[in-house]
Amino acid sequence: MAPKKVTIIGSGNWGSAIARIVGSTTKAYPDLFDPEVRMWVFEEIVNGEKLSEVINTRHENIKYLPGKILPTNVVAVTDLVESCAGSNILVFVVPHQFVKGICEKLIGKIPSDSQAISLIKGIAFDAAQLEGVSTQKKGGLKLISEEIRDILKIEVSVLMGANLAPEVANDNFCEATIGSKRKAQDGPLLKKLFHTENFRINVVEDAHTVELCGALKNIVACAAGFTDGLGYGDNTKAAVIRLGLMETTKFVEHYYPGSNLQTFFESCGIADLITTCYGGRNRKVCEAFVKTGKPMDVIEKELLNGQSAQGPLTAEEVYLMTQKTGVDSKFPLFTAVHKICKGEMKPAELIDCLRNHPEHL
Amino acid sequence: MAPKKVTIIGSGNWGSAIARIVGSTTKAYPDLFDPEVRMWVFEEIVNGEKLSEVINTRHENIKYLPGKILPTNVVAVTDLVESCAGSNILVFVVPHQFVKGICEKLIGKIPSDSQAISLIKGIAFDAAQLEGVSTQKKGGLKLISEEIRDILKIEVSVLMGANLAPEVANDNFCEATIGSKRKAQDGPLLKKLFHTENFRINVVEDAHTVELCGALKNIVACAAGFTDGLGYGDNTKAAVIRLGLMETTKFVEHYYPGSNLQTFFESCGIADLITTCYGGRNRKVCEAFVKTGKPMDVIEKELLNGQSAQGPLTAEEVYLMTQKTGVDSKFPLFTAVHKICKGEMKPAELIDCLRNHPEHL
Repeated sequence: MAPKKVTIIGSGNWGSAIARIVGSTTKAYPDLFDPEVRMWVFEEIVNGEKLSEVINTRHENIKYLPGKILPTNVVAVTDLVESCAGSNILVFVVPHQFVKGICEKLIGKIPSDSQAISLIKGIAFDAAQLEGVSTQKKGGLKLISEEIRDILKIEVSVLMGANLAPEVANDNFCEATIGSKRKAQDGPLLKKLFHTENFRINVVEDAHTVELCGALKNIVACAAGFTDGLGYGDNTKAAVIRLGLMETTKFVEHYYPGSNLQTFFESCGIADLITTCYGGRNRKVCEAFVKTGKPMDVIEKELLNGQSAQGPLTAEEVYLMTQKTGVDSKFPLFTAVHKICKGEMKPAELIDCLRNHPEHL
Repeated sequence: MAPKKVTIIGSGNWGSAIARIVGSTTKAYPDLFDPEVRMWVFEEIVNGEKLSEVINTRHENIKYLPGKILPTNVVAVTDLVESCAGSNILVFVVPHQFVKGICEKLIGKIPSDSQAISLIKGIAFDAAQLEGVSTQKKGGLKLISEEIRDILKIEVSVLMGANLAPEVANDNFCEATIGSKRKAQDGPLLKKLFHTENFRINVVEDAHTVELCGALKNIVACAAGFTDGLGYGDNTKAAVIRLGLMETTKFVEHYYPGSNLQTFFESCGIADLITTCYGGRNRKVCEAFVKTGKPMDVIEKELLNGQSAQGPLTAEEVYLMTQKTGVDSKFPLFTAVHKICKGEMKPAELIDCLRNHPEHL
């Protein structure tokens, strides 16, 4: 078999960190991978220079991952279609609102036997788009992987885990989970593409669970941030994290029955949840929301330097779909996070919502 | 049925915190419980006063839980046998090395239909005592609950959870898990004895798992402390916590086959693990061990004000029993924690042991 061509679609903080890994593994296995890894870069002018040119000459993403050198075999390409032409493996790592537009531009422009792997943490809920029966039943819920698959008609796996990008870029030891429905067929190759000394991969078949863990943990991190802002200690925070995990398992089981409980023990599950609830930006923003009393969008602008917090958005989408499907009362923590973010409930009321959690009955 | 008499055996930090809860619930349910709760106090002179007399007059354990008022229906009794006479429910909350001696003194002195509930986090491994066949098979492993049951011939449940004592004493919202093999029979009463507005109880039948989670998490917290001391971030710490949890599930399954994976999602499982790995004393001691290079016993003296860290001791006991039963290679994290505590391995080697963890194969 010819070596596989790999394209990274996206060049933000996480995209650049993963490019360091994929650049090294593709060089390490020339029989398996074409060592030239193309990275689609949305062109920007940074300090008077084109970002793509800086990446291709100085091998550094000076805007989103300054100070870390990218492997020289990672090549920035600013034209999306050109970056993906002939590519066998598409690594999606862009903000989730861009996925649809990107996929539509790629229709007919990639080999029909390409496969994708999504590193995007979020869901593709679209209230205006309840046309499909399966989507209607789910109250509008659609996974990012399902969106890519539906538009491009290719197989889509996911990679999620306890992976704060700056620490991955720093080569700190960590783990990640690949969810691949064709585990036997695709798992070994995908593992080789991401598995390094310091980035340890497990592959599981239960891809829906892997992906939903990645999306829903941001809601739990908001709740954890609220408890930090309210001045609670480790006991309360652990209880909130646990109840958030229980709602995650219930949510997955409700919308994608047949999930494997074991998957929640992978890096994508408890490990990512812990990392996000202690070190992530959703926690930070929600702590500040309580402490300052400012609206969420103001806090995001002040703290996140142009990035947005996924948690409040995911909480809203989840609330809309659990309400539509009549199960919102089964998810008191998810619901409370949404209402608190919207200013419809006081942060201090979070604990009251949890006191009579279905888990305690 | 006559109201049940309750005795708390122990009056340290955790014993005093739990006395605040049990004092309030027994008052709230006079049909179920005798409102006088006796608390066995090992007499000490504190600032020239007898601790038991201070507790019975000023209702404060000035040595182990200063600043928090105990309910007036909690009565300190310095004679162990007298404190337990006629008692229907014995709440064990003493350092685990005292359990055997206490139980032996109580033989024949308590009603034969009494029951106990252990809040003690540790295991009762005794290398010199491999007489029983079932214990031999387990390499000397004996649970605290088994030790109490064997000596007193009474039913023993356990209570474990994400319960740092100072926060429980502060009435912060948290959860705990009761493991009771006679859940249908004893569960409802035990839940009433501990369940309050801010201390939320779930009861499960899988008592062995509940108890082993409580003991083994201290080893994992040592590993988490080492990563903190080594300067790693949230990704690495989450990976270490996850791998520690996986070893815990494997350990339980190896020595007590038939455990329920769901139990690890209770407060006794992931929640306690998180709390302990972020806020507990084992973490703190092990971080300082790496940063200062001093021996473990010196660090304990410096940091713990007379208390000891359970983690290094449990790691040693677990190492001895996994070695005896030939399965130590299945538990690389547990083994590494023991060797690092003993100075037989450098803390920095911890990550190397995890790189080829059985979980990654």
